[in-house]
Amino acid sequence: MPASDLISMIPDASGWVDCLGFQAGNAACDIRRASNPDRLDLCILFSDRPCAAASVYTLNQVFAAPVKLCREIRDSGQRCRAIVANSGNANACTGEQGERDARLMQEWTARRMNVCETEVLVASTGRIGEDLPMDRVEDGIRVAAENMGADDGNGRGAAMAILTSDTREKIVACEVRAGERGYRISSIAKGAGMIQPGMATMLCFISTDADVPADFLQAALNDAVDGSFNAITVDGDMSTNDSVILFANGASEVAVSSTEERELFRAALARICRLQAEKIVGDGEKISKVVSIDVSGTSDDRDAEKIARAIGNSLLVKSSWFGGDPNWGRILDAAGYAGVSFDLSSVRLDYAVGREQVSVFADGRAIHANKPRWKELVTHPRFTIKLRLGTGAGEYSLLASDLTEGYVRFNKSE
Amino acid sequence: MPASDLISMIPDASGWVDCLGFQAGNAACDIRRASNPDRLDLCILFSDRPCAAASVYTLNQVFAAPVKLCREIRDSGQRCRAIVANSGNANACTGEQGERDARLMQEWTARRMNVCETEVLVASTGRIGEDLPMDRVEDGIRVAAENMGADDGNGRGAAMAILTSDTREKIVACEVRAGERGYRISSIAKGAGMIQPGMATMLCFISTDADVPADFLQAALNDAVDGSFNAITVDGDMSTNDSVILFANGASEVAVSSTEERELFRAALARICRLQAEKIVGDGEKISKVVSIDVSGTSDDRDAEKIARAIGNSLLVKSSWFGGDPNWGRILDAAGYAGVSFDLSSVRLDYAVGREQVSVFADGRAIHANKPRWKELVTHPRFTIKLRLGTGAGEYSLLASDLTEGYVRFNKSE
Repeated sequence: MPASDLISMIPDASGWVDCLGFQAGNAACDIRRASNPDRLDLCILFSDRPCAAASVYTLNQVFAAPVKLCREIRDSGQRCRAIVANSGNANACTGEQGERDARLMQEWTARRMNVCETEVLVASTGRIGEDLPMDRVEDGIRVAAENMGADDGNGRGAAMAILTSDTREKIVACEVRAGERGYRISSIAKGAGMIQPGMATMLCFISTDADVPADFLQAALNDAVDGSFNAITVDGDMSTNDSVILFANGASEVAVSSTEERELFRAALARICRLQAEKIVGDGEKISKVVSIDVSGTSDDRDAEKIARAIGNSLLVKSSWFGGDPNWGRILDAAGYAGVSFDLSSVRLDYAVGREQVSVFADGRAIHANKPRWKELVTHPRFTIKLRLGTGAGEYSLLASDLTEGYVRFNKSE
Repeated sequence: MPASDLISMIPDASGWVDCLGFQAGNAACDIRRASNPDRLDLCILFSDRPCAAASVYTLNQVFAAPVKLCREIRDSGQRCRAIVANSGNANACTGEQGERDARLMQEWTARRMNVCETEVLVASTGRIGEDLPMDRVEDGIRVAAENMGADDGNGRGAAMAILTSDTREKIVACEVRAGERGYRISSIAKGAGMIQPGMATMLCFISTDADVPADFLQAALNDAVDGSFNAITVDGDMSTNDSVILFANGASEVAVSSTEERELFRAALARICRLQAEKIVGDGEKISKVVSIDVSGTSDDRDAEKIARAIGNSLLVKSSWFGGDPNWGRILDAAGYAGVSFDLSSVRLDYAVGREQVSVFADGRAIHANKPRWKELVTHPRFTIKLRLGTGAGEYSLLASDLTEGYVRFNKSE
């Protein structure tokens, strides 16, 4: 049976608590000292037993204190029990004070949940460069520990507590059939795209009740992140706090060990991550269009990626998408400065929506006769750009958003 | 005597014709079929005698037909007599038809001006992907040849004919003292920053009546361009048509040959290019701020350049400048993803306007006490960001603009 028939998405999923043995607690502790102090801004994600853990963090040289702490735990190979996460303050560029504060969050959570400090991961998102208000954080950890539970509301509350300027919570979960039995993978995320003035992070926390060996878990997560969160762009800015964390607690008593089982787990995890990545772009800051940039025919995948990123991060291309303008000249221009050599006369550019596909450029020239059709296609809120270079077999697909006046207005001040 | 005392800027300069033996002619031939058919959109820049020529073109893999033609002439080492340039149509992505059209422009200009075809360079700027209306171009070349002259009006008309959505013509000229005598260098330019929907080019044409050996001329131009046009960014998009062309006709009978004379010429040319580059950023599309990003203390200059470009092209950084918001967190974040490793605790960030300088970040933390002062500095229309990394002696300075809602609105459709 193909993997796709064994994986079914869970409608109305609740996030972290969808999987057996996982609980969540939340608090509104007004970390940002904002106008809406009742907004949830801290959560504790918990497992009733030790978990194999895998994680991927920002590659930014300027990384936040909690990222430093989490990397140390990952590198120690430690099994994990909990994640404490807050929004409203990134605890980034806060020096040694920031490192002390991240460790305090870890320590307080460990004490409240009665686990070891080194079993607790920490994540923060929000404003850069300001010290965390630790009295509020301490209070939030106490409250979150007190209302810990496995109800739908616990799961959804956690999904809300990690948001900054996202317009909606992001929950994706699936059920995987394994013979007579099954396991689940569930996830909550918050968006990329420097979602609020001075804020900058994508977070994704994934739980599974499958029993998965830690080394394979990390390898599967690396691959899933490459094909999802690393293949999207809203504004091309990489954050100081990006974190994707996956806990597997084995509570379903379904082991993922044979090659076949591993492939199935990989496929399910990749799908979860890909769907979350699409949600993040679709909820990108003030965006109006989601565009898939499919580049193929380069010498290798890396060249295809370079070209896709040059296109997806070009201000002119993104501005024209906002206007519903099929400005293919800007797309070719951006491809031309990606640092990949190619021959324009072998380049082919098509626009597509669903099954409808229109050729825009071939044999070194625009196909002006198709203009009415391609102009229509780019008015859709979601379309695909297919650029083929005729050099080799490399390919890459990048999911990008447009650039709107609203984005600039939204980000012009704190 | 230091070079600076030997070089004096010419106020109210006229461009190409400021130098002895140079003439210009212009025409309004409505190449763009726009609402204002009286706007000048074609010019011929001419020298009454053969010139040593040097030139630098876009590095974009997708380069326009005239760029291909000009490169061939440069590589042949041919002396030159004329440039024919049009705005309103870039003659880019136009296939073999475009190449034929560029050669026709060359041929018609050569015939009208009574010179060899291979002595004529061609430049175009404007819309990508549409064939040139050659009947109009032929007519324009005839008119421009007929009104050829060395008056101020001829020079200024040429400066206007190459503009697209620039708000003003860009003329910079200087006089260089060489003993009892002297020579001039003059220049006209049009702006970078994809200045009009579907348009994308910076052009600069430079004349000098100094007598300069061709090989040194090219070397001096390469250096001048590196320190000027290659050190600016409006939107990070590199055009298909960027061209900088320098003609030296020797009409002043002042030879540039000794080491000292060469250094003086280099300094004067570098200053001309730097001033034109500043004009281009200052007239960038709908910009409101010009920011100099001075990065130092990296292992080498290339690392400093990478960091400066990551900052200068970050949408979030540029949006915050538009809002007059001193968002230093975004600056450090962008520096962090430039692909250069550094230690945040050795980083120092200052903002400066003129002689006033304020420290923003040092020892791994923001200097919050200085906040009122740094907030005031970034409200200025022009300021400097000084980022020091404490690793080595590398440095780079990039001139960048902000990103405004007006830019997005302006570029959202053709």
